[in-house]
Amino acid sequence: MNFKISKSVFYNALLVVSRAISNFSPLPAFSGIKIEAKSDCLVLIGSDSDISIKTLIRASEEESLKIKETGSIVIESKYILEIIRKMDSSEIEFEMIENASARIISTTSEIKINGMRSNEYPNIDFTCPAMKFEMKSDILKEIISQTTFATSKSEIRPVLTGVNFNCVNSRLNCIATDSYRLAKKTIDLENELNFNITIPAKNLIEVMKTLELDENVMIAVSDKKAQFVIQNTLIQTRLIDGSFPETERLIPVSFAYELEIDSQDILSAIDRASFIKNDGVSVIKLSLDENECLLSSRAQEVGSSKENLTKATFKGEHLDISFNGLYVFDALKAINRGKVRFSFSGEMKPFIIQSVDDQSVLQLVLPLRTYA
Amino acid sequence: MNFKISKSVFYNALLVVSRAISNFSPLPAFSGIKIEAKSDCLVLIGSDSDISIKTLIRASEEESLKIKETGSIVIESKYILEIIRKMDSSEIEFEMIENASARIISTTSEIKINGMRSNEYPNIDFTCPAMKFEMKSDILKEIISQTTFATSKSEIRPVLTGVNFNCVNSRLNCIATDSYRLAKKTIDLENELNFNITIPAKNLIEVMKTLELDENVMIAVSDKKAQFVIQNTLIQTRLIDGSFPETERLIPVSFAYELEIDSQDILSAIDRASFIKNDGVSVIKLSLDENECLLSSRAQEVGSSKENLTKATFKGEHLDISFNGLYVFDALKAINRGKVRFSFSGEMKPFIIQSVDDQSVLQLVLPLRTYA
Repeated sequence: MNFKISKSVFYNALLVVSRAISNFSPLPAFSGIKIEAKSDCLVLIGSDSDISIKTLIRASEEESLKIKETGSIVIESKYILEIIRKMDSSEIEFEMIENASARIISTTSEIKINGMRSNEYPNIDFTCPAMKFEMKSDILKEIISQTTFATSKSEIRPVLTGVNFNCVNSRLNCIATDSYRLAKKTIDLENELNFNITIPAKNLIEVMKTLELDENVMIAVSDKKAQFVIQNTLIQTRLIDGSFPETERLIPVSFAYELEIDSQDILSAIDRASFIKNDGVSVIKLSLDENECLLSSRAQEVGSSKENLTKATFKGEHLDISFNGLYVFDALKAINRGKVRFSFSGEMKPFIIQSVDDQSVLQLVLPLRTYA
Repeated sequence: MNFKISKSVFYNALLVVSRAISNFSPLPAFSGIKIEAKSDCLVLIGSDSDISIKTLIRASEEESLKIKETGSIVIESKYILEIIRKMDSSEIEFEMIENASARIISTTSEIKINGMRSNEYPNIDFTCPAMKFEMKSDILKEIISQTTFATSKSEIRPVLTGVNFNCVNSRLNCIATDSYRLAKKTIDLENELNFNITIPAKNLIEVMKTLELDENVMIAVSDKKAQFVIQNTLIQTRLIDGSFPETERLIPVSFAYELEIDSQDILSAIDRASFIKNDGVSVIKLSLDENECLLSSRAQEVGSSKENLTKATFKGEHLDISFNGLYVFDALKAINRGKVRFSFSGEMKPFIIQSVDDQSVLQLVLPLRTYA
């Protein structure tokens, strides 16, 4: 095994596959990156068995890779990343030597690093599931950033630690909930498909980090796994077993009160009040009236805050409603644009937040009971 | 107590004094900032008893402060910083209300925060010691950045956790050592003074963070404390008791070998080899010859590295010398400029590193014995 490669091309590819590697991998081999030189390309694989990433660098792409001899080896991820990052020449020579070690040569330095034989690396099945669809990278980024934050951080109900992708005909609903709040993104696919799978949120976040602007992403799913193909990189994740709760009936459809406000105004107001916590929770109260919209917060130990949301418009009878400030803060951050509409059905009923201009994403929050 | 103040002026002053506040303060009052409105200025104090910072904002400086009523209060540091940082108007009104609370008002929001009466805050003696000298801020910055890293991280010999400031006539030597390496910066003061004090490294680092470019710093010392006055801010630190070891006789004065090299070249070479560790230590070996200078490193478990320092020049017989890579890395970072000279007296003798252009700073490192 022997190849010459551009330092930056090699480093960026190593960085992509290293995202799959966990510090607490179940198998020693999984702390390494598998590097395989084929006759026409270099294939890098990183995995922790839960998520696996494979990327491919083609030989002779603008002369950035020349393969002299095929072969494969596994090198500890943290070492190979550090070595290549610090190399001082733009081209690097990589050669396998006796005892599953590698020699890495730049203009001035020569490094030998111990590795593992590639037959000690588990065989990962990368076959592509039959059910496939395409999506723009910015749409996939939105799906992930607008839902994952609402998944549960607790492992008590594992299925709630993932985002449910539920496709009926060509309508795809992506839903996350920790049972106190819910985030739902809806998009229409180009082809008709029916599936219902739940993907671990942490793996979706790794997919998001790999996405660049304006690419096509091919997604393939089965009842066992999901694959995301982004240019020369394939990310494969396991699914979470168990049926995702039926959430459609939880989302109210008729409302008696409506608040419209610039998302930045209410984000800042909630942020300013967030230092006031009761048992670690920042409880925000809205007192809404057609003449005046007040946002307030109070904790005996700390103090209180009061804001007049002068630029808000409210329709309905007087309403007092309290909620966990962090949940609404997260929901507004996820919507991340212009004017938003809060739709309420009553003081103790779940309420929804949507962008006035974009109905594809819906954020639902349960109110809190307060005795103040 | 009631004043109006520019948000940014207030926030920056709070930030400066908050540097003295420790998360593990011995006294509850020390988690707060003391805010005192006098007739012509606002005085802020933060302290953890080890280090105390006082800063003063004068009234009517470009209209940035208007005092309506004098008085004082203590407010939890983390709360007041967060409140002021997030305020949305450029001017803030601050008022003391019943029960040692404060009301803070911006254009749209009104916050009440519980505080403490200022008589619960310890009285800190800020009287100025008689022995005084002045120095440019960039010189003081150099003293601190070129020495503190070499202090001991262990509390076994407390005096080694500080930097010794030893002034005889007008020559000031600032010395730090952890007994494996030593850093010494020498400067000449304008006035004749004699003192020998040791200042905690961590407090010097806080002084450094407060320094801006091209200011005059007034330093006043006694055998109990040191004060640094930077514009309207006064930083006061306790000293470390105990006599600092006599280090002058440890520094060799005659050398049989001399290596000159660009500091960046050898820094990068050491950095590249730093992933190779034996029991957590990156042992670097130099094999020096008038024809060839090699830098290498080896660890059975990990691998090896070898570099040819082609641009180095060496004078002397053949020399093999090994050292802790981190110590030489730190020393070179502290010198931080152009060409450096390594002067050796023998394989197991301490060696020194100095900038070729600037003899004011000297770095000394003890070599390591290796059996490779």
